Parts: sequence; structure tokens; C-alpha cells
Amino acid sequence: MLKISRYQDISLIENEAKKDYVDRHSPFVHCKTSAKAGEKFEIKVRMGKDYEHPDDFDHYISNISIFDKDKKLAEATFYAGALGGQGKKGHQEVTFYVLLEKDATITAQSYCTKHGLWESDPIKVSVS
Amino acid sequence: MLKISRYQDISLIENEAKKDYVDRHSPFVHCKTSAKAGEKFEIKVRMGKDYEHPDDFDHYISNISIFDKDKKLAEATFYAGALGGQGKKGHQEVTFYVLLEKDATITAQSYCTKHGLWESDPIKVSVS
Amino acid sequence: MLKISRYQDISLIENEAKKDYVDRHSPFVHCKTSAKAGEKFEIKVRMGKDYEHPDDFDHYISNISIFDKDKKLAEATFYAGALGGQGKKGHQEVTFYVLLEKDATITAQSYCTKHGLWESDPIKVSVS
Amino acid sequence: MLKISRYQDISLIENEAKKDYVDRHSPFVHCKTSAKAGEKFEIKVRMGKDYEHPDDFDHYISNISIFDKDKKLAEATFYAGALGGQGKKGHQEVTFYVLLEKDATITAQSYCTKHGLWESDPIKVSVS
Repeated sequence: MLKISRYQDISLIENEAKKDYVDRHSPFVHCKTSAKAGEKFEIKVRMGKDYEHPDDFDHYISNISIFDKDKKLAEATFYAGALGGQGKKGHQEVTFYVLLEKDATITAQSYCTKHGLWESDPIKVSVS
Repeated sequence: MLKISRYQDISLIENEAKKDYVDRHSPFVHCKTSAKAGEKFEIKVRMGKDYEHPDDFDHYISNISIFDKDKKLAEATFYAGALGGQGKKGHQEVTFYVLLEKDATITAQSYCTKHGLWESDPIKVSVS
Repeated sequence: MLKISRYQDISLIENEAKKDYVDRHSPFVHCKTSAKAGEKFEIKVRMGKDYEHPDDFDHYISNISIFDKDKKLAEATFYAGALGGQGKKGHQEVTFYVLLEKDATITAQSYCTKHGLWESDPIKVSVS
Repeated sequence: MLKISRYQDISLIENEAKKDYVDRHSPFVHCKTSAKAGEKFEIKVRMGKDYEHPDDFDHYISNISIFDKDKKLAEATFYAGALGGQGKKGHQEVTFYVLLEKDATITAQSYCTKHGLWESDPIKVSVS
């Protein structure tokens, strides 16, 4: 079974290297929790809150996708070097725009070329 | 948590519609179980064994990816209509070629635009 | 040779249907024309200025990518229905964030599942 | 305008480094020139005929797509290292399977992370 890692509350992790590892690999969904049906709705996904991920050729975030429940809405593919390249770090992020017609549950998935698939906590969006 | 469906032995499923549903959505990895280090190695992924999936605009297999353990090796993106379009069915398939340097565990993941993510059984490949 | 369509000034096009066709299929790059080296730089791409593109299963904008000169920085893949689905129209858009180290020329390319590849005018960004 | 490079007959190129450069970056479509309507049709795309492309983290073939005229049929995304990694070279290739309903013109496009977009000669396929 493919391993899919998930965010853990890093305030509960004592080891600094592990805090960094978990935080920088976790995609976080940033969006409002309510939307108007049929209106443009912004969904930003940003990797990490407190720690930045390297943008090295052999170690970078290559994909971020968003789902409403199990339905994929969009996916971004990144190329190494776009966040500054070797020696640089950054929070990879992307902003998508969708129209929601009914209540949604938005989850993001990301892929690190060294540390595999990661999944965000879901965000519930009520649509009226 | 994103739902990822997995193949179940359809000979144990009595309901014909469910056999069809499970089989046509499951990616199957077809490759040898041994490889020579550093030589081209063929990995075919084919959707379904006994049942074909529709290729309708609103319901088709849009992605097939392969992993060695948790590392993505390649991904194919398909467009609706490439297998004949509305009213047609087929086993979507793709053949990738990789070089393996050490023992590998190949898993395929696919995405159906109506029924989400599916994952194959893993195939172990011994490399010498 | 694959056809790649480009924006033409629609104020010079008399035929209303053609104005609509050209505008709704053209990706436009929205970003500042100067950037600070090594700082996060926002690049939005939005399809169309005056006319919206359908989001139908058999006719939608499936990809938007950005390049600095000939180097691809990122690509977004969209799925039919994310802008409201059949009968709806919208300006598909996505916002990427990159770090630039030297003067850049940003071009966007998009793909419509019925009308093929389109390319934006390039935007020059001076980096200091 | 994004530069898209095309194959030139390398027997007419005298400089060895340029022969190598052009050949290893060119996608070649390998398929039959006739097909039966509605039957599975194999389309292989392979980079280079005589020269192999590096599979380095900072220099690899990341994408191969196929088109029928201007319509994209499928695209493969590769990850650095899948052909053996740093110091190794190989002909990246992928085999797609489509159904054609009428005469087709198959063109491949590829992307090298250092040398941009390349396009194959088109192959005409008569369908009966």
C-alpha cells in the first residue's frame, strides 16, 4: 500500500528535526469555510506553516492537488528551481479558483520527490 | 481522508455490477518479477482484467501513475475520447520503461473522474 | 507542425463570434514588471479578458503552464466541472509563486480540449 | 514566442556535438501508418535514435505528449532518476494505446528541463 503521510500537531513533537520534517511536507488548505453557490471561490494551498522545504533538483515539491471529497478539482506540477534552486528553501504554494454548487470538503495532496505523498487535513466549506 | 479504493478478488463478489465496478476501476501492473540492474525494464499498467471502463467525457480514466515503493517513477494523463469517446469502452493502458538498480516494489495508482483514486496490488521485482 | 494560436488585439476584430473565440482562449499573464531577486513573486494567469470560456465536459481549459523564456516553471491541470460544469462559463485562472534571480520573460501556454494550444504575449520582468 | 525545436536530418549536420544534441532531444513517433477504426492502436514515442539523453536531476526529459492534429490524446510525466539517475543516459520512451475513428496525424511533443520544448515530425495514419 502506498504510504500517505499526514500532518500531526507539531506542538506535540519534541524532536526539532521531526517538527521540521512534518511541517515542511504538509500541505495546508487556506480558504473560507463558507461560499456562495456559483461564485468564484479561492483555494490556496501552501506547504508548511513554520518550516520551509528545500527546492533542490533532487528534492522538491513536484505536485499539489486539491480534491472536493474524492473528486479531483485541479493539480499543479512544479519544476525544480522555480523557488530559487539549490540551497534555497521556500513554502511552495498555488492558488486555484473553483465554483462550488453544494457543501464541499476540500483536501490537498502533495508529492515530495524524496518523501512521497502527503495529505492535508480536510476543510469543510458550507455553500449557500 | 481521501478514499483510495483497492482491488478485491472479484471471484468472491457475487453481485455482477459490483464485480464490473471493482474490476474496471483497478489498475493492474504487468511486468516481470526479476530485472537486471541498469537494463531497460518494461512496466505496463492496464485498467481492468475482465471488464472495460467507459471513455465518456464525464467519466473516464484520466491518470495512471507508477511508484517504486513510495517514489513516483512516472505518470500518464489521458484525455476523454482517446479510447473512442462517448458510448465506447476500453481497457486504458500505458507502458513505461525504467531502469531499476535494486529490488523494487511497483504499485500503480489510477484516477477515475467519477470514482476517484484506485491502487493496484504491489508487484515485487528482484533486481540482480 | 502543431498549431499554437496567439492573442490578437480583439478591438481590431469585427466579427463578434471571433472576438469571443480569440479572447476566451487566450491566457493572459498578470504580474508586476519588476521583482526583487530571491523574493516571492506572484504570477497569475487568467483565461480571457472580456469573454468567458465554457466549462463543459467535452470543452474546457485543461491546462495552463508558465515559462520563463523557454524554461517551464509550473503547470496547472484542471478537470471539467470545477468551474461549475455544463452550461456554465468562467475565466479559468491560477496563481503561481516563483523566485526570480535575474531578468525574466514570462509566457503562459494553455490548452483547450477542443481548440488546442494557445500562447500569451510575453511579459518582461526586470529583477534587481 | 516560446521556442519549439524540431528534428533536423542529422546526417546533414557535420558537428558531432550538434548531431547528438538534436537527436537526443527529438521525440520520434513509432506506429503503423494504417489502423482499423475502433481497434486498439499502439503509439510509441521514443527520444532519440542514435544518441541517448542524460537522466540527471537537473537535466532530464520530463514530459512526452501525443497529439492527433491539434488534439492532445495523452501525456506522460517522468521524474528524474527513473532511467538510472545521475551519470546514466537512456532513450526515454512511453507507449500509449488509442482508438482512432478517422484518418489521423500523430505528432509528439517533449520537454527537456534544460533545453525546452521539442516536436516530432508528424506521422499520418490512414484509418479504415
